[in-house]
Amino acid sequence: MQKADLLICGGIILTLDEQDSVIDPGDIAIRGDTILDIGPNLSDKYQASTLLEAKGHLVMPGLINAHTHAAMTLFRGLADDLALMDWLKNYIFPAEARFMSPEHVYLGTMLACLEMIKSGTTTLSDAYFFEPEAARAANDAGLRAVVAQGIIDFPSPDAPDPKESLRLAEEFICQWKWSDRISPAIFCHSAYTCSPQTIQKAKRMAERHAVPFGLHLAETQQEVQEIVHRYGKRPVQHLADLGVLDETVMAIHCVWLDQREIDLLQELQVKVVHVPESNMKLASGIASIPRLLERGITVGLGTDGCASNNDLDMFREMDTAAKLHKVFSQDPTALKARQLVRMATREGAAVLGQGHRIGSLEVGKKADLIILDLQKPHLLPVYNFYSHLVYTFSGADVDSVIVNGALLMRNRKVLHLEEEKLIERIVDLSRQIQGQMRGR
Amino acid sequence: MQKADLLICGGIILTLDEQDSVIDPGDIAIRGDTILDIGPNLSDKYQASTLLEAKGHLVMPGLINAHTHAAMTLFRGLADDLALMDWLKNYIFPAEARFMSPEHVYLGTMLACLEMIKSGTTTLSDAYFFEPEAARAANDAGLRAVVAQGIIDFPSPDAPDPKESLRLAEEFICQWKWSDRISPAIFCHSAYTCSPQTIQKAKRMAERHAVPFGLHLAETQQEVQEIVHRYGKRPVQHLADLGVLDETVMAIHCVWLDQREIDLLQELQVKVVHVPESNMKLASGIASIPRLLERGITVGLGTDGCASNNDLDMFREMDTAAKLHKVFSQDPTALKARQLVRMATREGAAVLGQGHRIGSLEVGKKADLIILDLQKPHLLPVYNFYSHLVYTFSGADVDSVIVNGALLMRNRKVLHLEEEKLIERIVDLSRQIQGQMRGR
Repeated sequence: MQKADLLICGGIILTLDEQDSVIDPGDIAIRGDTILDIGPNLSDKYQASTLLEAKGHLVMPGLINAHTHAAMTLFRGLADDLALMDWLKNYIFPAEARFMSPEHVYLGTMLACLEMIKSGTTTLSDAYFFEPEAARAANDAGLRAVVAQGIIDFPSPDAPDPKESLRLAEEFICQWKWSDRISPAIFCHSAYTCSPQTIQKAKRMAERHAVPFGLHLAETQQEVQEIVHRYGKRPVQHLADLGVLDETVMAIHCVWLDQREIDLLQELQVKVVHVPESNMKLASGIASIPRLLERGITVGLGTDGCASNNDLDMFREMDTAAKLHKVFSQDPTALKARQLVRMATREGAAVLGQGHRIGSLEVGKKADLIILDLQKPHLLPVYNFYSHLVYTFSGADVDSVIVNGALLMRNRKVLHLEEEKLIERIVDLSRQIQGQMRGR
Repeated sequence: MQKADLLICGGIILTLDEQDSVIDPGDIAIRGDTILDIGPNLSDKYQASTLLEAKGHLVMPGLINAHTHAAMTLFRGLADDLALMDWLKNYIFPAEARFMSPEHVYLGTMLACLEMIKSGTTTLSDAYFFEPEAARAANDAGLRAVVAQGIIDFPSPDAPDPKESLRLAEEFICQWKWSDRISPAIFCHSAYTCSPQTIQKAKRMAERHAVPFGLHLAETQQEVQEIVHRYGKRPVQHLADLGVLDETVMAIHCVWLDQREIDLLQELQVKVVHVPESNMKLASGIASIPRLLERGITVGLGTDGCASNNDLDMFREMDTAAKLHKVFSQDPTALKARQLVRMATREGAAVLGQGHRIGSLEVGKKADLIILDLQKPHLLPVYNFYSHLVYTFSGADVDSVIVNGALLMRNRKVLHLEEEKLIERIVDLSRQIQGQMRGR
């Protein structure tokens, strides 16, 4: 008998490997942070200190939220149903200026992490201010994260002098680059809020440290017009000419692309993150995801921040994405359930440059996985697992969560965080925010 | 002190009355099936046999699912991501022909009712076959329901000879017309599957018995083309000319309407039910709901059956509807959260002809209400209740459910149904269905 730390027994295992193999029933042996073995009857082979019975449960890779601004949970529902500029200028920017301190970024990110654990997300890709605090929160919460310091050519809460922001980013990268679960990165807000020089400097810095580089790209028609007006070319061409587009770039949104821009993204192997609910809620537009997938472009899925969604539930995001692209393309066979599940797992991992470590359940990969209860009225009957994951599950159906081999949630009880204390602090803070935002 | 049966204490009460009054904190006194009083400090005034503490919880009218085919839960996820005709002809129709017996309609409807109770729906509007069994299930489940016998000019599981279907419908109406919670109705499948004569006869029968009359209307472009081809006019004009459109008619879908048809629906005071997720998933199209609302047309919200959604969660339906219409109309202020909540409550009640009895929390109305827990990570902080209901809540956040004064669920435990036994029977049946559908 070999030793294992954790043995998950008798579940229906959706591996999301290259062949989408399903092992039913199957076991998973975990040692340390790594998947040691997957297959039937592993209890004959391994003696584990902890045994997790998963009979009648789905076991699958943890979901990967490839784009969010985690601390914005603090502004969840603060301002909805508004025109984009009204929303940004009269609510979000003032609220950020007033309330986004290091302490609040930690608190808001921790709230986001708690929500993500409880809805089956094991890896997030975050971009915001005061990212050392976001990294600390994700680390304390036990999640895996790509955490990107935001760069913008305006005064921001953590860099009242925008010239400081690149230095802050480099300090942050150096501070976290040797962490196992937390991967630092750089995120330029966009081509319309960052000068060509800023974008190039940030990209070179990302290259020097071999960390991912992300930015919002082609989110709205106004953005495209603005870039064409300023630089005489469309956003993707502008960035390609700056020499900053390559296979380590995470391009968020990609709603407004012409054919030439899709060609460029494909040629340069840029990774795309689809953020459908935020794009819908802000009426930004609908990204042509089926076309990008046809071209072999790697596309992940993200929720965006809670000010424009207003939740971090990746199951709901898959559902909305599937339905949106069907009606938009007038084709009910567009963007099938299995494609969505892959976007939310292994494709998301590839977007983050971590396809070799996470995104599927395979021997040697990190043990990031979730266990889902199937015995609930709204989940019955079960004919097709992928379809169920996309069209019927919600985050509330996640039973247990394991990240890096550590059991973070069991039977919906988060084991290592003081949920009630955090809730109290959030309620207090939100009363302050509401009082002061009303008083403006 | 006056006597009450139930006193709900200290909640945040969203009444959804004409003024959208909010009473925070407030109490609700219930006697029998009726709301006796609403206001602050009712415990000084009423002595109740049962007290329900609702501090820090939202209390609101139960949600009204204005269109579903409840028993189709049995086919949840059986066939997804398919073209409409492939889906219908190769999966749904054969599955119905094989498996829809009275027993299975009871079982499937009961499963739907359990899901609805657990996600905060207190009234459903159902249309299907073997409706005496659907009515019996909804009645046993303790829900309020409009239950409509389906009429179609093809052989159906309960009327192999279509001529029988009107007789069955009349028998069904007579059987249930004196029930308090169950309101029988008639539902013609559509103008392309029912002849003008069938539709007229069904409508006259509905009038004779003073019950609602519903039908699918303008769901797809193909349907419009078919009606124009057959009758030389578009569907709404065709029905108007048949003399069957009036204020008791529930027109489901209404995706493909021209200006003249919208005028007709408004003039004739036809009620509309919006079914966004099903329309998206089947790629039928997007109904112009903001335009219908501007014209003062009463619009309710429904999930459709589980074969095309695949859940009955009205919270998710509100969320999707809000986001869909924003992106479709390129206006982030379109279809605001509060409008959606009204559609899912008081407007839905009006669609069902029950606006005087349900849809809002007001003295004298039936006590149909739900209590929602706010103290969860994904629901914090709280700035705006309507926004929260639409954009962040899901059915799983419903804590307690009261229908007709009876407490059906408390702390997510359904009190009067044997959930586990039902789940066992569903699992057994779904294995049979899957085996036989595979073997075809």
